[in-house]
Amino acid sequence: MTLADKLQATLHHEIPLTRHMGIEVTHFDGHTLRLAAPLAPNINHKHTAFGGSLYALAVSCGWGMVHLKLEEAGMHRHIVIQEAEIKYLLPVAGEMCAECTVDEADWLRCLKMLQKHGRARIALQVTIPGQNNAAVEFNGRYVVHG
Amino acid sequence: MTLADKLQATLHHEIPLTRHMGIEVTHFDGHTLRLAAPLAPNINHKHTAFGGSLYALAVSCGWGMVHLKLEEAGMHRHIVIQEAEIKYLLPVAGEMCAECTVDEADWLRCLKMLQKHGRARIALQVTIPGQNNAAVEFNGRYVVHG
Repeated sequence: MTLADKLQATLHHEIPLTRHMGIEVTHFDGHTLRLAAPLAPNINHKHTAFGGSLYALAVSCGWGMVHLKLEEAGMHRHIVIQEAEIKYLLPVAGEMCAECTVDEADWLRCLKMLQKHGRARIALQVTIPGQNNAAVEFNGRYVVHG
Repeated sequence: MTLADKLQATLHHEIPLTRHMGIEVTHFDGHTLRLAAPLAPNINHKHTAFGGSLYALAVSCGWGMVHLKLEEAGMHRHIVIQEAEIKYLLPVAGEMCAECTVDEADWLRCLKMLQKHGRARIALQVTIPGQNNAAVEFNGRYVVHG
């Protein structure tokens, strides 16, 4: 079982809404994580993705990134979203994909804080691509502790 | 059928995820709109509400407020969330409630812009109360057009 498969199982088990939304973990290479979800369970009246679903996909992508980086480091901690901003630039009229790339220096800083203080914050950007440009830009601050 | 009942039917029909989340419209008096949703379909591994569900409830509350104020004005327009910020201050360990109160001056300004230019923006704050203080604060900018 790859780390991506494990994350998908964890999301579906721990956050049942992600299963209903059809969220799949499609890629993880240690730096970049991609999640996808079909339009059907996430559709709105304009036949595009509901803004709440786009947010839920993005916040799960950031959460998943921290979860996998902790897993790689052999650590089990709580991860909580503290605050976020989201900008909707273009409608998404098909499958939704979310992509998050972690900055290694940010992650090492987060790990160091965690080891020193038992608590750390990390800011992550998640993009949901449109046809040519980003359709959604999400910035979330997560707290890791426990 | 009250305006609150009509909004609930509209949400469930047009955004199926709101039905799966169990979102109900519990109050509308022309100024304040309240939505609620049970914890079960929105739960996470800590037995509190998933951050994505809290956002989806809040963004639906703001959308619903604009929808109902347009309905009161006898207007049918498109309402789109353009950007939002959310702060998670406390976990929500039971039913989630969201409350939005529209500022009448803001709404009249929005209506005037809409009548003059066919397009307007309105900023709305949505609060999800905790036991004593706000558990979640949401600020969204919506565009009305068409």
